[in-house]
Amino acid sequence: MPIEIASNVTASTRFLAVDKERYAYRRFGAAQGLPLLCLQHFTGTLDNWDPAVTDPLAAGRDVILFESAGIGRSTGVVPNTVAGMAAHALAFLDGFGITTCDVLGFSLGGMVAQQMALERRSIFRRMILVGTAPRGGEDIMHLEKPSLAKPLGDPSLKGYAVLQKIFFAPTETSQKAGAAFVDRLKRRAEDREPTSGPAVAQAQMAAFREWEKVSGQRFSDLKEIHHPTLVVNGVHDEMIPVRNSYWLSENLPNAVLLTYPDSGHGSLFQFHESFTRQAKAFLESESQFAPY
Amino acid sequence: MPIEIASNVTASTRFLAVDKERYAYRRFGAAQGLPLLCLQHFTGTLDNWDPAVTDPLAAGRDVILFESAGIGRSTGVVPNTVAGMAAHALAFLDGFGITTCDVLGFSLGGMVAQQMALERRSIFRRMILVGTAPRGGEDIMHLEKPSLAKPLGDPSLKGYAVLQKIFFAPTETSQKAGAAFVDRLKRRAEDREPTSGPAVAQAQMAAFREWEKVSGQRFSDLKEIHHPTLVVNGVHDEMIPVRNSYWLSENLPNAVLLTYPDSGHGSLFQFHESFTRQAKAFLESESQFAPY
Repeated sequence: MPIEIASNVTASTRFLAVDKERYAYRRFGAAQGLPLLCLQHFTGTLDNWDPAVTDPLAAGRDVILFESAGIGRSTGVVPNTVAGMAAHALAFLDGFGITTCDVLGFSLGGMVAQQMALERRSIFRRMILVGTAPRGGEDIMHLEKPSLAKPLGDPSLKGYAVLQKIFFAPTETSQKAGAAFVDRLKRRAEDREPTSGPAVAQAQMAAFREWEKVSGQRFSDLKEIHHPTLVVNGVHDEMIPVRNSYWLSENLPNAVLLTYPDSGHGSLFQFHESFTRQAKAFLESESQFAPY
Repeated sequence: MPIEIASNVTASTRFLAVDKERYAYRRFGAAQGLPLLCLQHFTGTLDNWDPAVTDPLAAGRDVILFESAGIGRSTGVVPNTVAGMAAHALAFLDGFGITTCDVLGFSLGGMVAQQMALERRSIFRRMILVGTAPRGGEDIMHLEKPSLAKPLGDPSLKGYAVLQKIFFAPTETSQKAGAAFVDRLKRRAEDREPTSGPAVAQAQMAAFREWEKVSGQRFSDLKEIHHPTLVVNGVHDEMIPVRNSYWLSENLPNAVLLTYPDSGHGSLFQFHESFTRQAKAFLESESQFAPY
């Protein structure tokens, strides 16, 4: 296998066949310790992982970017529940022969990570949940509300420009960080994934609506997730408001919360230097407790 | 001046006369860079600063523990407003000739720090606010509520045993950390401060009630505090609930929030290794932005 620079700008997309599906993924990094599985946001492909986040993390471990069924060049159909997505991610790790790893779940990916931890506790050692919500959370990706409907319906905003608008706060500083984020995503020139279409969005939106439902005592399933967990959010997240992160950190028994000012859903991209420093310190801890 | 080990176990109490008052304080540490002013909690004296928190911080800077008017061996009367306490802290720094420092304000001390920053922006470079609340916060030190009235009225709990009960969460792990905290406070054998009596408590409680009042738009004064700020709390704080820290981090324009699991008001003492690591990284940052 040729030596690659450990970067999501250049890492080649690979494929793993498991059962009926063929999953696209990228794996790059230091190949020491436990790998870090990265689970992606609504409609995001492998190309939506900011190299300013993935690459510093890959300096100390293998980073595995996973593309779930029906996204990008992965075969299959996008499930309309988080549990269905968790099944794909577990099948992928099984196909790889990975029995335990760390996880970085962003937005929808953070929900998938929680579901995986509930179904198979041993699959994760430490968890990082960014811009996400517990089952029974509120105001999860309601794209019809004015603050999101307006930029999403603006014909002058196309492609990544929409991401910049809705992942970042409306301040000058945050939008500037958003523009830098978009520039970094564009640095990958070849071997790119096809972007997601309406069918992907529709199934994932159904999964969000199902995830908002509560059966039994609200947030009681979080008590079963004992993994050391780092919860991260921007305080001005319009897509999955920060109170969902408050509920995570108040109800997960072993979670540290970190929030960033002047930022929205994409706080990890805006403050990528701080986020990767904090995430590395968290992942490098050998403690059974989350504080690092 | 004799060389002292930089520890609150052994640092001698000193006195600074300014105007009509003589303030007790301790100053110890590496004497490089900006000093860190430490502002204390309800009824707390210089002896209530945990050496597991002060001493690691003093390894990289001078730590100044300040005893406000009417507390311990400081002369004067305890003010019944936070603004009154801020005036004493500013007079003390003026007397020392300190024009800018960093601050660690815990609980009541965090309110005093906010007031000082509002009155004289240049007095602080970076701020750490632990277990505290903004003006207009809620449920600030309501000792009459059952969760606090019960341990406070328990005749079997005396002295530091009360602190252990109310500063830490009711779990076995948190109470064990509380016992270790109490043991550390007891390590200082000589040159101790007299403990606070009812008159101190009464004036400080009046200050809490006044701090809960809002005039004008709620939290609007926080928009004026642009200092890089680190807000810290335990998610099970019964004395000043964590939602007050959420309001701080959502309304201060430049604040990072860090919360700890399985802990209450004394989260900084329970997770002293993590807290001092995070605090040092925050204080060592040269950025104009809070994320570190």
